[in-house]
Amino acid sequence: MGKKIMINPGLPQHNNLTYAPAVRKGNMLFISGQDAAETDPVTGRLTFSNDILEQTKIIYEKLRVILETAEAGFEDVVSTTDYITTTRNYKATADVRRQYFGESFPASTGVIVKGLLHAGALIEIDAVAVLD
Amino acid sequence: MGKKIMINPGLPQHNNLTYAPAVRKGNMLFISGQDAAETDPVTGRLTFSNDILEQTKIIYEKLRVILETAEAGFEDVVSTTDYITTTRNYKATADVRRQYFGESFPASTGVIVKGLLHAGALIEIDAVAVLD
Amino acid sequence: MGKKIMINPGLPQHNNLTYAPAVRKGNMLFISGQDAAETDPVTGRLTFSNDILEQTKIIYEKLRVILETAEAGFEDVVSTTDYITTTRNYKATADVRRQYFGESFPASTGVIVKGLLHAGALIEIDAVAVLD
Repeated sequence: MGKKIMINPGLPQHNNLTYAPAVRKGNMLFISGQDAAETDPVTGRLTFSNDILEQTKIIYEKLRVILETAEAGFEDVVSTTDYITTTRNYKATADVRRQYFGESFPASTGVIVKGLLHAGALIEIDAVAVLD
Repeated sequence: MGKKIMINPGLPQHNNLTYAPAVRKGNMLFISGQDAAETDPVTGRLTFSNDILEQTKIIYEKLRVILETAEAGFEDVVSTTDYITTTRNYKATADVRRQYFGESFPASTGVIVKGLLHAGALIEIDAVAVLD
Repeated sequence: MGKKIMINPGLPQHNNLTYAPAVRKGNMLFISGQDAAETDPVTGRLTFSNDILEQTKIIYEKLRVILETAEAGFEDVVSTTDYITTTRNYKATADVRRQYFGESFPASTGVIVKGLLHAGALIEIDAVAVLD
């Protein structure tokens, strides 16, 4: 199966954490829940847009970079889970999914949780891919 | 590994969505979270029983149809996650699991969430299967 | 792929349930959500520490036993999900992860849920491993 390989595209918020942004072993790729945190270049603090659509766009860009680092693509993604804290404007995020997945959609589950770990996060998405 | 294949048994609520009811790639099958939504034949609106046991029965029938469409069965299911909004009568759903899984149970996790995407849903279940 | 194998290290709280503590099929191992329930030897009731760090230590010991029963180890774990009901002292659990994973971390997602199935549980963790 090959060894477990931690995939880290160098996102700043992943330093010093006890998980990897993604892990590959054999042809399975597991991607950690991504939120839309961006690091303020001056203060170093995490910042968030206050709109779930904007947050989703940022998350899908992070997923794109992680997949690329793992030499994979959205066509390999078989499952995503959306953990959301609000349904406000959530339906609009379907367009982001169409943009990145084309017509090759994954299985998906969406649930409304009580909270996410970073204050300000409205949505967090994890994913599983099966590589060729 | 073969290509990613979207599995769609033609459930009406899956039209025009940005996910597949299930996706197979290689021998991995990921099934999207299923709730007990039924489409009212007159109004076209989604309806739900107000009992978690009845909802669970409907969901397991959906899972059965999805697995059958994927040429798989409950004996291939290795994991389920129950996302519930109430614990009322939840213990009774064990009988549904016995009925469908026999004695070949999957690994399972159950959590109480703040809400599900369809108003009226008391339980949503996703699943992973490893095919022969 | 081999048959589906239920992995049961004989934890008392898993008797008569409709899921397996873990399931292996082929090289995939899915571990059910574990909480920190301990069975009081006198009353037979489930008891919990009221600190998330202590609960996490108990859960990782359960995961260790389950992995060992499956002839696997933490180096095979590719994904964990933490379902928590409080963020109080949650950061301290990183040390437990360092202790068990060394520097070979899995992908991970953490979400705050409304509740867990056993009253007193502050954290429940499920995991996926890819075996050699």
